[in-house]
Amino acid sequence: MTNKYYFVGGQQGPWKVTGMSAYRGAELTVVERIEIGNGEQVPAATGARWTLAGFTSNVRYATGAEIKELKARQQGLGRPEATSAVLIPIRKSAKWWELAQDERRAIFEETSHHTAIGMDYLPAIARRLHHSRDLGEPFDFLTWFEFAPEHAPAFDELLARLRASKEWDYVDREVKIRLTGLKPKA
Amino acid sequence: MTNKYYFVGGQQGPWKVTGMSAYRGAELTVVERIEIGNGEQVPAATGARWTLAGFTSNVRYATGAEIKELKARQQGLGRPEATSAVLIPIRKSAKWWELAQDERRAIFEETSHHTAIGMDYLPAIARRLHHSRDLGEPFDFLTWFEFAPEHAPAFDELLARLRASKEWDYVDREVKIRLTGLKPKA
Repeated sequence: MTNKYYFVGGQQGPWKVTGMSAYRGAELTVVERIEIGNGEQVPAATGARWTLAGFTSNVRYATGAEIKELKARQQGLGRPEATSAVLIPIRKSAKWWELAQDERRAIFEETSHHTAIGMDYLPAIARRLHHSRDLGEPFDFLTWFEFAPEHAPAFDELLARLRASKEWDYVDREVKIRLTGLKPKA
Repeated sequence: MTNKYYFVGGQQGPWKVTGMSAYRGAELTVVERIEIGNGEQVPAATGARWTLAGFTSNVRYATGAEIKELKARQQGLGRPEATSAVLIPIRKSAKWWELAQDERRAIFEETSHHTAIGMDYLPAIARRLHHSRDLGEPFDFLTWFEFAPEHAPAFDELLARLRASKEWDYVDREVKIRLTGLKPKA
């Protein structure tokens, strides 16, 4: 299952935690480093306090036109200058999950402009979404954002706009983990 | 993870295989019985030849109006008279998964009437959908159908209508496993 990713919070890994805070709901134990694994094997990490798992999947809300625009604008993870990262685990309420597909789509995009907001920060803020709810995880989604340090203010604005949206009425747990890459990239 | 289900094909289990056939793509090894497990543990079964896993999840295409109608009409699994079952593992093509949400919804319902067709056979034909693709499984979906033996012709008609739909152009592997319950139900 190569679409599966693990984020292990502990004392080891190439990403140093520079800040951790709960925005809504329960805290997550503060750790020093994060190790990331891809595949079936949970990566070993010294002093591991927690492991979060998720999988990448097909798009759930974006239309053909939105995907075309995203593909034209976005860049991948791992850019040499993208040494800042933020991991945001969120959980949505039971009320959200009981909604039908058209009701969720209407809140997600027509009301909250989730995709459109993210688009405003491309290509600077790259991201990868991991789905966790179907794995019985404590969070529903893990979003990994990666950007050059000078784009940190842009990231903060992106996050503030999403949190101010109607969609965020359905977020009942959210933690923000700020990170700095320790290894120089190729 | 209590939304996870295992179907183990072998020589043990409460469901006796009365027929197995590949409709599209590669066959699945013919077995005598099927054992079903729910949770993290793969159930042990004598002479197991294969194990298929999937999870139940939120609806991916149905609108609020469709869900309301489904809830009003459908009945659960495990009805005493529902001693016939069919397990249909299917895989959809890469082309399907590259489509956007609106494009998949349009083929699924506006063109192929998937939900509407299923609705025509409620409450007689009960079903439970399991998602497998995100687990890296050989199939994308496992659908379990359960009904009283006298509704077998209705089931055949339901299946023929789905297979004749535009959506089925995107099905590249499908196996049908017919089953009879061996244990009298409470």
